[in-house]
Amino acid sequence: MKFLSFVRTGVAGYGAIIDDGIVDLTGRVQGALSLKEAIARNLLAEAAGMAADMGPGLASSDVTLLPVIPDPGKILCIGLNYEKHRAETKRPEASHPAVFVRFADSQVAHRQPIIKPKRSDRLDYEGELAVIIGRGGRNIPEANALDHVAGWSCYNDGSIRDYQRHTHQFTPGKTFPGTGAFGPYMMTPDEAGDHTSWPIETRLNGDVMQQATLSDLIFPIPRIIAYLSEFTPLSAGDVILTGTPGGVGDRREPPIFMKNGDVVEVEIGPLGTLINPICDEV
Amino acid sequence: MKFLSFVRTGVAGYGAIIDDGIVDLTGRVQGALSLKEAIARNLLAEAAGMAADMGPGLASSDVTLLPVIPDPGKILCIGLNYEKHRAETKRPEASHPAVFVRFADSQVAHRQPIIKPKRSDRLDYEGELAVIIGRGGRNIPEANALDHVAGWSCYNDGSIRDYQRHTHQFTPGKTFPGTGAFGPYMMTPDEAGDHTSWPIETRLNGDVMQQATLSDLIFPIPRIIAYLSEFTPLSAGDVILTGTPGGVGDRREPPIFMKNGDVVEVEIGPLGTLINPICDEV
Repeated sequence: MKFLSFVRTGVAGYGAIIDDGIVDLTGRVQGALSLKEAIARNLLAEAAGMAADMGPGLASSDVTLLPVIPDPGKILCIGLNYEKHRAETKRPEASHPAVFVRFADSQVAHRQPIIKPKRSDRLDYEGELAVIIGRGGRNIPEANALDHVAGWSCYNDGSIRDYQRHTHQFTPGKTFPGTGAFGPYMMTPDEAGDHTSWPIETRLNGDVMQQATLSDLIFPIPRIIAYLSEFTPLSAGDVILTGTPGGVGDRREPPIFMKNGDVVEVEIGPLGTLINPICDEV
Repeated sequence: MKFLSFVRTGVAGYGAIIDDGIVDLTGRVQGALSLKEAIARNLLAEAAGMAADMGPGLASSDVTLLPVIPDPGKILCIGLNYEKHRAETKRPEASHPAVFVRFADSQVAHRQPIIKPKRSDRLDYEGELAVIIGRGGRNIPEANALDHVAGWSCYNDGSIRDYQRHTHQFTPGKTFPGTGAFGPYMMTPDEAGDHTSWPIETRLNGDVMQQATLSDLIFPIPRIIAYLSEFTPLSAGDVILTGTPGGVGDRREPPIFMKNGDVVEVEIGPLGTLINPICDEV
């Protein structure tokens, strides 16, 4: 099933996609008011059944999409997790994933603008697979880690490269408001099937900029989940961004940065295409 | 005024310290139920007046302290902000503060144990001045930045050094559960006065390990607030950890790490002494 978050007639909620239409599930499954709450209360199977029974009552134009999870408790980002990207950044090989943090208030939805801040002209794309945590936990074993995944989505981990490099710590360049695009929907593992060979592609104004498959990941998803849960508890609705392939604009000769009027897309296997225009901060 | 957060008869709330006793203000100032809410609603002056009128009704033994702000929306940490510490880590001089993130669920209160995880024997102290944000904002000018401070407190930014160095990004070593000690109280700027020359000292089992004054900060507090608010909005109750002086255990010869049964203290000017025993994770 494909789930998504949206605002309808001024009220934030969530629903499912059926036959290209939308079923509004807000409050209808044991009172759950958000996708995060439905995940936390283990209601997704019931929600999927209800969505199938109800059928789509809304067109996509009836709602304003939100980021798939608008308010994750934690957004944990993995750096340098594709060999070609690691090589282009000239970083040494690592025995552990590099981990940094994005804040929830930096997110935008599918088709919402990614914001180029006034303070920088170095806004770059990073197409990434997003993992949405279902059942939380600490010290999750690698062997069981995929049981903790509620679903998968596309993410554009938009990065402000000069701020990212002000020092050795990436944080300032990785959480500017309006730079983290998340959508269009979350697909549950039962529908998505095996993720390990999905293609991932980022396009800028139609040109392919990043192209890889998830089999290229240096640290596979179960290893990432296990490692993160060694040092911090994971909870329902937490989001893990699993790293970006080679081909970022910043490492090209000459560099390419996104600007007002551009359109950036991230497409991953069965997860659809996340599309965002770029707009200048006003 | 000195404010603090606590649990009393099973209910989380907040209060003030008067004459070494505690006034329970929970729900009494326009219904505010937490210190963060009182800050966000600009009720601290009213709360201070009520605390002075009521006088202390509780002994400190009547409550169980919580971290000063148990649930900050953001905890932003500054690295390498004292020259002696920068030098001992052999990092180059920087034109910007290094910024990383701690999660709220890693915090403990004054006198609660700091947890040495099973996974590491490299638990280190970092005594730091904590800034608690009052009025939020984005792109806060340096000249006005101190107007955005609700109060000051002591913090022990306990660090797991091997996880911190797994890669170039510090996150994994900086947010282990039970490693961020925050207290004993928040002092408001009207009572605290000028912060710029307060002494800061960390003691381990009574031995002085770190000793500096806030005039040693490479990036002063207004500069830090201004810089952080360039890339992320600051909100009431957000916490900024402003960096630690030289003398961390990890850089000593031989290194000194904290272990079960140790007692660590952080004392800063008028902000009192934050005391924590170390306990092994069970």
